[in-house]
Amino acid sequence: MTLGQREADGKGPGMEPKLTPKLGAAQITAFLDEVFPQLRGQVVIEEVGPMRARLRMPIDASHLRPGGTVSGPAMFTLADCAFYVATLAMIGREALAVTTSLSINFLRKPAQRDLIGEARILKLGKRLSVGDVTLYSEGDDRPVAHATLTYAIPPRKLG
Amino acid sequence: MTLGQREADGKGPGMEPKLTPKLGAAQITAFLDEVFPQLRGQVVIEEVGPMRARLRMPIDASHLRPGGTVSGPAMFTLADCAFYVATLAMIGREALAVTTSLSINFLRKPAQRDLIGEARILKLGKRLSVGDVTLYSEGDDRPVAHATLTYAIPPRKLG
Amino acid sequence: MTLGQREADGKGPGMEPKLTPKLGAAQITAFLDEVFPQLRGQVVIEEVGPMRARLRMPIDASHLRPGGTVSGPAMFTLADCAFYVATLAMIGREALAVTTSLSINFLRKPAQRDLIGEARILKLGKRLSVGDVTLYSEGDDRPVAHATLTYAIPPRKLG
Amino acid sequence: MTLGQREADGKGPGMEPKLTPKLGAAQITAFLDEVFPQLRGQVVIEEVGPMRARLRMPIDASHLRPGGTVSGPAMFTLADCAFYVATLAMIGREALAVTTSLSINFLRKPAQRDLIGEARILKLGKRLSVGDVTLYSEGDDRPVAHATLTYAIPPRKLG
Repeated sequence: MTLGQREADGKGPGMEPKLTPKLGAAQITAFLDEVFPQLRGQVVIEEVGPMRARLRMPIDASHLRPGGTVSGPAMFTLADCAFYVATLAMIGREALAVTTSLSINFLRKPAQRDLIGEARILKLGKRLSVGDVTLYSEGDDRPVAHATLTYAIPPRKLG
Repeated sequence: MTLGQREADGKGPGMEPKLTPKLGAAQITAFLDEVFPQLRGQVVIEEVGPMRARLRMPIDASHLRPGGTVSGPAMFTLADCAFYVATLAMIGREALAVTTSLSINFLRKPAQRDLIGEARILKLGKRLSVGDVTLYSEGDDRPVAHATLTYAIPPRKLG
Repeated sequence: MTLGQREADGKGPGMEPKLTPKLGAAQITAFLDEVFPQLRGQVVIEEVGPMRARLRMPIDASHLRPGGTVSGPAMFTLADCAFYVATLAMIGREALAVTTSLSINFLRKPAQRDLIGEARILKLGKRLSVGDVTLYSEGDDRPVAHATLTYAIPPRKLG
Repeated sequence: MTLGQREADGKGPGMEPKLTPKLGAAQITAFLDEVFPQLRGQVVIEEVGPMRARLRMPIDASHLRPGGTVSGPAMFTLADCAFYVATLAMIGREALAVTTSLSINFLRKPAQRDLIGEARILKLGKRLSVGDVTLYSEGDDRPVAHATLTYAIPPRKLG
């Protein structure tokens, strides 16, 4: 119910996570190579920052369809990876963070150039990470797609 | 990450909630009157069933805009209430279940008649209830809007 | 603006498309083989009906990740194809119908079995087709994912 | 279909609308007062710019629920209005632009202060305007909600 909307996750200002990433691009790249080897070569982490990440999906002839361009599933994959990387940077190595929802608007036909995904976390709670990813063709600042994502973060094991 | 998608919430078949509602329409109506008195008269619970609920929003002259019809915020409210009722029926009295996301497509201009919302739960986990609500003008089976919702369910206090 | 929501597309009852599909499963399969040969073998059209279609995505060892299951991009592809097929069945051969938005909730871990997608059109206008697709693992009636889609239909060329 | 995603709306760079707004805040306020008088006092247009607008929803005791805060329908209304204003600024007086979809994530409990909506157009085509709105409680830069919207723009009458 949204009448007098209450907090669904997290505990307000005092619990707000620190804005310093726990992992950098090289550490996350090594982690992904280990747990998702099938992604290797598909995406490149260009930069991670506080609540943000930028990834590149190299596009070459093998990606292109006859008469075509970057496919929907490829854009889905880049959006999903970019938001996962932004979240990992803040919470640390956590293979079990899973996508619970992804909503994507396709805005323009991508060029036959590398695709860039800029991820931004809007809310990082204890159980959910919510944010968006804007996709661009390299060298053009008009977005080709925009995705909104929610990730579920598994409870921390105490040890 | 959706490569080898894992379970975000709940524990599979063995944990699947029983499909028998815990509360009926009259009990939920009494509960809503108590915790959300501002809703009184706005929506009527017509039926609750396993993972389902049907609500009616009475439309009279006072709801109608000049030259108009049912507004977007009214459709939002009906979708939100209908899914809340479907969820309450399954989990019991829980005022603190909150909407975490609501996505609505407006499909057709509603008639100047009562609006009906048919809610369906697609996944009832321990922490999330996910499903959709289809909105109709009474007496016309073509949907006027379709909404997808996620509710966060607060952890149970053990006692 | 949703105050007094008006019609965005289509013209109400009189313009409602006939509910008889123009194409059957075999005709659409032949059309997809021609215009999207890269899909061949990835999805099988099991049934088309009025405003509906059911597709199967065969899952074999080559789809499975280490320790894994059906990936997010594979579910995206099945949802996208199933809704495209449901739309094609109603409007006829139209390669240029494109996805403008796709919103997917991941609900349960899919089993290592074929994936089924049940598409349903909620509104078929002149310019937009809007509806949803529910995904199941074969033999289990609890949905593994639910997607809402919008397709843009190109204007008809007059001859 | 998203394999080799094509353009759904608009015609690429050459058709990109000029980035200069056609209307300013005062002109749009006058227009809204005329066509949506029921909104008067509910929202205030603070600023419009190229592909952007910022609106304020004044929150006083009359908006607050017992124990409560800003409601979901109020946030829906602000998001919807803010995106409508951003779109009107670019296309001119057009009462018939209608919301076709609105997807909102509720992120944090809003404070009992005015609510601010920052709208951004990501794609302005001939038939669709697509973008997002981020909602804040005044004086706090952590978003309380984030919405993605699509508006249908009616075809221009030629004179």
